[in-house]
Amino acid sequence: MSENLGRWPVSIDVAVQWGDMDAFGHVNNTVYLRWCESARIAYFEKLGLSTGGPNVKHGPILARASVDYRKPVVYPATVRVQSTVSRLGNTSAVMNYRMSLVPSGERVAEGESVIVLIDYQTGAKVLLDAELRAKVGALEEQGTG
Amino acid sequence: MSENLGRWPVSIDVAVQWGDMDAFGHVNNTVYLRWCESARIAYFEKLGLSTGGPNVKHGPILARASVDYRKPVVYPATVRVQSTVSRLGNTSAVMNYRMSLVPSGERVAEGESVIVLIDYQTGAKVLLDAELRAKVGALEEQGTG
Amino acid sequence: MSENLGRWPVSIDVAVQWGDMDAFGHVNNTVYLRWCESARIAYFEKLGLSTGGPNVKHGPILARASVDYRKPVVYPATVRVQSTVSRLGNTSAVMNYRMSLVPSGERVAEGESVIVLIDYQTGAKVLLDAELRAKVGALEEQGTG
Amino acid sequence: MSENLGRWPVSIDVAVQWGDMDAFGHVNNTVYLRWCESARIAYFEKLGLSTGGPNVKHGPILARASVDYRKPVVYPATVRVQSTVSRLGNTSAVMNYRMSLVPSGERVAEGESVIVLIDYQTGAKVLLDAELRAKVGALEEQGTG
Repeated sequence: MSENLGRWPVSIDVAVQWGDMDAFGHVNNTVYLRWCESARIAYFEKLGLSTGGPNVKHGPILARASVDYRKPVVYPATVRVQSTVSRLGNTSAVMNYRMSLVPSGERVAEGESVIVLIDYQTGAKVLLDAELRAKVGALEEQGTG
Repeated sequence: MSENLGRWPVSIDVAVQWGDMDAFGHVNNTVYLRWCESARIAYFEKLGLSTGGPNVKHGPILARASVDYRKPVVYPATVRVQSTVSRLGNTSAVMNYRMSLVPSGERVAEGESVIVLIDYQTGAKVLLDAELRAKVGALEEQGTG
Repeated sequence: MSENLGRWPVSIDVAVQWGDMDAFGHVNNTVYLRWCESARIAYFEKLGLSTGGPNVKHGPILARASVDYRKPVVYPATVRVQSTVSRLGNTSAVMNYRMSLVPSGERVAEGESVIVLIDYQTGAKVLLDAELRAKVGALEEQGTG
Repeated sequence: MSENLGRWPVSIDVAVQWGDMDAFGHVNNTVYLRWCESARIAYFEKLGLSTGGPNVKHGPILARASVDYRKPVVYPATVRVQSTVSRLGNTSAVMNYRMSLVPSGERVAEGESVIVLIDYQTGAKVLLDAELRAKVGALEEQGTG
């Protein structure tokens, strides 16, 4: 199945806020992780995967996150954050993110995260089942990457 | 010189704030990058390296950052963030971070970042000179790692 | 002139990010101040008033800020933040903010801030001159409030 | 009872993080609200009042918050945030905050918030009962203000 992954089917646009900048005068490094998070949640929503709530038995947690910073971003700007699932393991998935300026398309950063599905009660890892795999596959097929 | 690096000479304690938690009820993933940043700045200060200001010609920027999340952190807690320079290249350095609960010492996360020294006017990379290398070496020798 | 103020000429739309929510599961109280700040900066930009930089001699600082929280906001949502100058004193101005859901228009919060123009070198208050007053008046006339 | 209120019984120290500063080079206005929140939570904890969780029926929400900014704060600094309940109404309470540098004691800001106790299910306001009033009174008596 993995040849069908990594096709960047989900994209959100985020308006940089003035307050995202730090004392260096450009967007603070932590803000990029927030953008990745927002893109990840958008992806989960397209999957119909719940992102929390009192009756949810298991859900995704972040095992690893990384960002490669290409260009400093300064306010005002709009950043397009694309997301894709590039790998599906037994109990984990790899998501990738591309962050680019709108409308120039200039790449400003790339991100990657490893997500694990866990049982909220026990903390144990949960297998990514066939239904979820099919949903991810169907969503990725809508991508153009 | 690199055999003397990676000795964890700098450490800060950060009190988790209630508002660091997100809707999942544990500390949000972006907060760990903020902790790494604070530990990095503390390291720079011990080096006597400026972290910005109108008369500074060159300074560090972040080229890459990553976090490995080991255990969720919930308020209230105090997190010890240790930092070290583990590698010194020609124009870049690798810093590592260890985040642990105080007083239990339980490891909650690890971080790594690649830092590049740039000329703020031109944006060009600047060589890490002998003086800076000597300062890093002397600071690392104070570590116990 | 003050009869021409308070006409809400500037408006921005902000997409709520999932990470804006805290452990109570709704948007954290500090985020509303960030929205007010973004609306204030948007207002300053329309005035042609600089919001910082190395060559700027004087600029606005915040003397007071308040928020009245009407309704909890949860992700996903878009919030429209309108801003207006409601009063111009000798050295200070009062700005007001209205935050409403898009597209329902339901009011979720109101904000107010007192802004003082200061000389960055001396820290002394600076008189709001006739040129600035005229600019604010002209901008407010474009409002519909 | 109100003559026994406003005695500042609770205090927390917060280390300013470098990343708390914005592009103006001092601590961003939203961070002060975060400090007030942390001081409020510390007060609730001393009362034994829960700050959320799946089995909690009613809890405090913020109806209003304000900050008076006295002096800009720059990293590095430690800020002491004192909190007190200054008024207890039927369904609401007023809390006040004082923020000062440590160790100089220089006042940097003051804050106030109006807190309402609500039923999380219905959203209706809940009466502040005699038990809670007694707890607040006892805690305030430990203050020195």
